[in-house]
Amino acid sequence: MPDTHNSDFNVTPWEVTGQVDYAKLIKKFGTQPIGDDLKQRLFKDAGESHFAIRRGVYYSHRDLDLALTDFEEGRRFFLYTGRGPSGPMHLGHIIQFYFTSWLQRRFKANVYIPLTDDEVYLSERSPSLDVAQKWAFENSLDIVAAGFDPDHTFIFKDTEYLGRMYKLAIRVAKKINFSTAKAIFGFGGETNIGFLFYPAIQVVPSLFEHSRCLIPCAIDQDPFWRIQRDIAESLGFPKAAALHSKFLPALTGISGKMSASIAETAIYLNDDERTVRSKIVKGAFSGGQATVEEHRRLGGNTEVDVPFQWLYMFFEQSDDRIEQIRQEYSSGKMLSGELKGILIDKVNEFLKEHRARRRRAEGELEKFTGTGELASRMMNSDLT
Amino acid sequence: MPDTHNSDFNVTPWEVTGQVDYAKLIKKFGTQPIGDDLKQRLFKDAGESHFAIRRGVYYSHRDLDLALTDFEEGRRFFLYTGRGPSGPMHLGHIIQFYFTSWLQRRFKANVYIPLTDDEVYLSERSPSLDVAQKWAFENSLDIVAAGFDPDHTFIFKDTEYLGRMYKLAIRVAKKINFSTAKAIFGFGGETNIGFLFYPAIQVVPSLFEHSRCLIPCAIDQDPFWRIQRDIAESLGFPKAAALHSKFLPALTGISGKMSASIAETAIYLNDDERTVRSKIVKGAFSGGQATVEEHRRLGGNTEVDVPFQWLYMFFEQSDDRIEQIRQEYSSGKMLSGELKGILIDKVNEFLKEHRARRRRAEGELEKFTGTGELASRMMNSDLT
Repeated sequence: MPDTHNSDFNVTPWEVTGQVDYAKLIKKFGTQPIGDDLKQRLFKDAGESHFAIRRGVYYSHRDLDLALTDFEEGRRFFLYTGRGPSGPMHLGHIIQFYFTSWLQRRFKANVYIPLTDDEVYLSERSPSLDVAQKWAFENSLDIVAAGFDPDHTFIFKDTEYLGRMYKLAIRVAKKINFSTAKAIFGFGGETNIGFLFYPAIQVVPSLFEHSRCLIPCAIDQDPFWRIQRDIAESLGFPKAAALHSKFLPALTGISGKMSASIAETAIYLNDDERTVRSKIVKGAFSGGQATVEEHRRLGGNTEVDVPFQWLYMFFEQSDDRIEQIRQEYSSGKMLSGELKGILIDKVNEFLKEHRARRRRAEGELEKFTGTGELASRMMNSDLT
Repeated sequence: MPDTHNSDFNVTPWEVTGQVDYAKLIKKFGTQPIGDDLKQRLFKDAGESHFAIRRGVYYSHRDLDLALTDFEEGRRFFLYTGRGPSGPMHLGHIIQFYFTSWLQRRFKANVYIPLTDDEVYLSERSPSLDVAQKWAFENSLDIVAAGFDPDHTFIFKDTEYLGRMYKLAIRVAKKINFSTAKAIFGFGGETNIGFLFYPAIQVVPSLFEHSRCLIPCAIDQDPFWRIQRDIAESLGFPKAAALHSKFLPALTGISGKMSASIAETAIYLNDDERTVRSKIVKGAFSGGQATVEEHRRLGGNTEVDVPFQWLYMFFEQSDDRIEQIRQEYSSGKMLSGELKGILIDKVNEFLKEHRARRRRAEGELEKFTGTGELASRMMNSDLT
């Protein structure tokens, strides 16, 4: 999940530069904002509310209304979200999967999760296929820990499952020419021919069932779904629906860049308590004032304060509590150090629980990759 | 095997236009002619001579000398030749396989034969994958009939075997960028991204073993092997060797175009005796004179006479007999009708025997695709 923020911004599936104007992105990509009516309809169908929708972390969509209509009329949609296994996962990566597992529970949906080892290799984000596959294994444990149903979730590495995907992939690929791929993804003469083919592979899981696919993803992935929606019906499948999230800002600032190669910008799922504390205390960009006196007088700026944003986007899920924090911080009653302390406790509590679930996942993983109900069906059936 | 012949010529793996100047093609592609010393060395290693080499039907090569050195020093090379299953096979297609099976017997070599159903689908040479797969099955019976060893030959459809090929394919693909593919294959903005990826797939079987691959093929396929030779060593494999043939001319003339959609230009392996006779009598381009009197006086031109060329390139394998025919025909002693009669008998005799072998192939096919020694090893091992 790339997320650089400066004044001019550019968002592609492989690069995000500048400070993202999310409202502009909706216009640029031609997606729809999630209005209040649609939110309420989603909560009603789900049987409960969800903070990430309430707060606009997921803020844009394509055809979410049609997916809900399907559900309301007894036709289940299925979920698809993936991971490029280029390295260890950080908090920005995992919150997507927690939200997807919530959708799965509430809508009794099958979930398909490719680990795109081919993509990270072909795009030079991994030094070798072996390394990508090692990370695919490590990442899959974190993904399972996010709470998926072992009988209705299929996790697979592209390189291992491509044998069954290839026929569908070339049916998709035949409908995408170089000019289109160039326009949408910025491909050029230097792009290798494996990476040129990859968009077809990313589209395929959205065609794993003949019912509607709903894709929860960060907004930068939308170009793939634009292609999917251009060609799906001509192949006999529904257009995919999508639910787009904003990016969790980098620790070092909402105008800074979270980078896998700059450890200080992110908190990894295997960072220990001391590391979490140190990264947040030393590195988290604060919206507080330069001195305690000034802070008491002027208050903190929650819009740019990364600890506040992280609490708001994931770690403090109580609306009452987050509003209390917002008020106390912006009024100057709460100092930056206190706010950071709240986040440190929340992150460490989350990571402790996540890691316990990850340990349990080791014994469950093969259900997701082969022996569970959905996985064994996928491993033994032809895709058409 | 495309083979149009006009004054200016152009040869790519998917299109051959103009009258091919084979000597120029050697210079253009940067290959080597097969000199007399190399011919004799090949015959000595093979333990017998072969008319197609003696007569220059296979006339160009890359590293054939190195393949022979490998063999002489006890390191076996392996053979790779394929078929795009776009329709029924004609005589021009099958003679390649007869030659390859001769190489297999004489050099005790494994042979890998992909049926590139993906390629014919992606390049619009087949209306659907299902149709391509039907032809892949039909073609595989004709290929088996050419005399391959069921325990040392692996025949597979790309779409069925791609699961095991994909990792190698993306290692290859990562080394070929769009600019290179454009320069070599003439790809452009309208080329679909599946076809853009295809050259990587065509390279993969040349990496099925870590020993040297020798590829007998029509000269138009050489661009693929140029790419193979550019990248193989960086992936830890030897550069492929190749043995290039001329094209069997179209029935309608060495300057005409053999086209799968124009039945008169080709003789198919399932054409019956009457059809063969009719096509040759009515349609075979003759180098004879306009009247019997003129022919007796001036003689026939064997250079442009398609019946003579077909006899020379495949159907009359006795050097004494073909020289006798050449002399009698060019001196005017033999008339065009007589020459055509000789070819008709030869073709029908060949097709009768070929079809008997094809019927036997039905019971043997599964050895080539799964249960034979080499096929079962390939179906159960990872490619690295």
